[in-house]
Amino acid sequence: MLPFIKKRTKIYEGKAKVLYESGQPGLIIQHFKDDATAFNRKKHAIIEGKGVLNNFISELIMDKLSGIGVPTHFVRRLNMREQLIRRTEIIPLEVVVRNIAAGSLCSRLGLEEGLVLSRPIVEFYYKNDELGDPLVTDEHILALDWAAPHEMNSIVNNALRINDFLTGLFSGIQLILVDFKLEFGRVEDEYGETQVILADEISPDSMRLRDSRSGEILDKDRFRKDMGGVKEAYQEVARRLGVLPKDILNGIIPPDGETEN
Amino acid sequence: MLPFIKKRTKIYEGKAKVLYESGQPGLIIQHFKDDATAFNRKKHAIIEGKGVLNNFISELIMDKLSGIGVPTHFVRRLNMREQLIRRTEIIPLEVVVRNIAAGSLCSRLGLEEGLVLSRPIVEFYYKNDELGDPLVTDEHILALDWAAPHEMNSIVNNALRINDFLTGLFSGIQLILVDFKLEFGRVEDEYGETQVILADEISPDSMRLRDSRSGEILDKDRFRKDMGGVKEAYQEVARRLGVLPKDILNGIIPPDGETEN
Repeated sequence: MLPFIKKRTKIYEGKAKVLYESGQPGLIIQHFKDDATAFNRKKHAIIEGKGVLNNFISELIMDKLSGIGVPTHFVRRLNMREQLIRRTEIIPLEVVVRNIAAGSLCSRLGLEEGLVLSRPIVEFYYKNDELGDPLVTDEHILALDWAAPHEMNSIVNNALRINDFLTGLFSGIQLILVDFKLEFGRVEDEYGETQVILADEISPDSMRLRDSRSGEILDKDRFRKDMGGVKEAYQEVARRLGVLPKDILNGIIPPDGETEN
Repeated sequence: MLPFIKKRTKIYEGKAKVLYESGQPGLIIQHFKDDATAFNRKKHAIIEGKGVLNNFISELIMDKLSGIGVPTHFVRRLNMREQLIRRTEIIPLEVVVRNIAAGSLCSRLGLEEGLVLSRPIVEFYYKNDELGDPLVTDEHILALDWAAPHEMNSIVNNALRINDFLTGLFSGIQLILVDFKLEFGRVEDEYGETQVILADEISPDSMRLRDSRSGEILDKDRFRKDMGGVKEAYQEVARRLGVLPKDILNGIIPPDGETEN
């Protein structure tokens, strides 16, 4: 008999993750790859063990967010690289929350990196690689029916709650949350009503984190800026969050690719 | 004695207009040039008589908007190319209202030209040539203190009222208002309170207009797309609005440049 892995059906392969059928209704498997990309795939590399670290970090954060009542797609971690999640209809938006000016905000608006914003900025980008994920406003989203007004309210409210919670979580481990990206998806509840829940992942791939004492960069910017030490930075975040797997610490990194459940 | 024109002080020279001191407190002179530019000044030409036509068209529209209670900077037309306006502190935003998809909306979001939007879209662009007038959201505007929340409310309300009014005005003369751009500025009222009023101009330079029967383009898109007949299109809009000056009709176009009051 063939091992279970051969029977899995791939639903979607993205830049850093793969989705598989789980065989259970309403549930799918999210697999974290070691691939790192930036600038709309113009830059690509393999960061050994990154997928494992993001799997553990995202598990911890999604779990804590459920704890404060933010609905998420996360069900449970399956193994070193995979987690069981709810199948959602992804809303085609990247929701970015910014506390400090960095990255594209600075280049687009001529702001200095590190400017502390007088209030958090919530931005929406249309998820479309071909168009370079363009910035959009509520107006575009509503006029083009990408999300309904009550869904936008729920997204903004949850994005700001997540920002408050994560800013607190990271400040306790001497990390500054500069900005982060979220994705949301629709699920049907038991009454057939659609609900918007947090999807995707929350990891150093989707956040900017700085050490609050040294200012050291501990996220994907190390990759974007060719600074090296990417793996070590992700490990340091996992270590401070208390989720650095012993195997990783001992240099035993489960290979990427098809893994068993 | 030198003619009056020599004593005027230039306050600001833009792509299509020049502002001069008027000698009267709180009032300045807005001069309409024949210069046409597009794609952030990458394209430039002189359209003979355009400044005259825009001066008359903008006068008519600003006047009608005052009539429905939209506060504007327009005081009175002085001559063929100039009008007296209130001095305002310009809010650094281009406010675009769109009824039908065209131009940058299509290229940024991959939409088809001519798509009728399910509701009008109000967009804000940060007025900054160096940065290419980037799209911004309420979030950027508020976090960076470019306008206050009550000012944004007033801008959006007036932009939507202007859209309703102009859509009606143009539909009466067989023109479809595809989209248009507005600028707003602050003035102090008699009690020292600041108020936001409509500034700049409203003309075929700042609107997209199509003939409702033939679909013919009657605005600056003729220049952007190298279609020729720019002057004739602007004249046709002025003619339908009933403000085509007889001199222009007879081919007598007052020269651009310093003109007397």
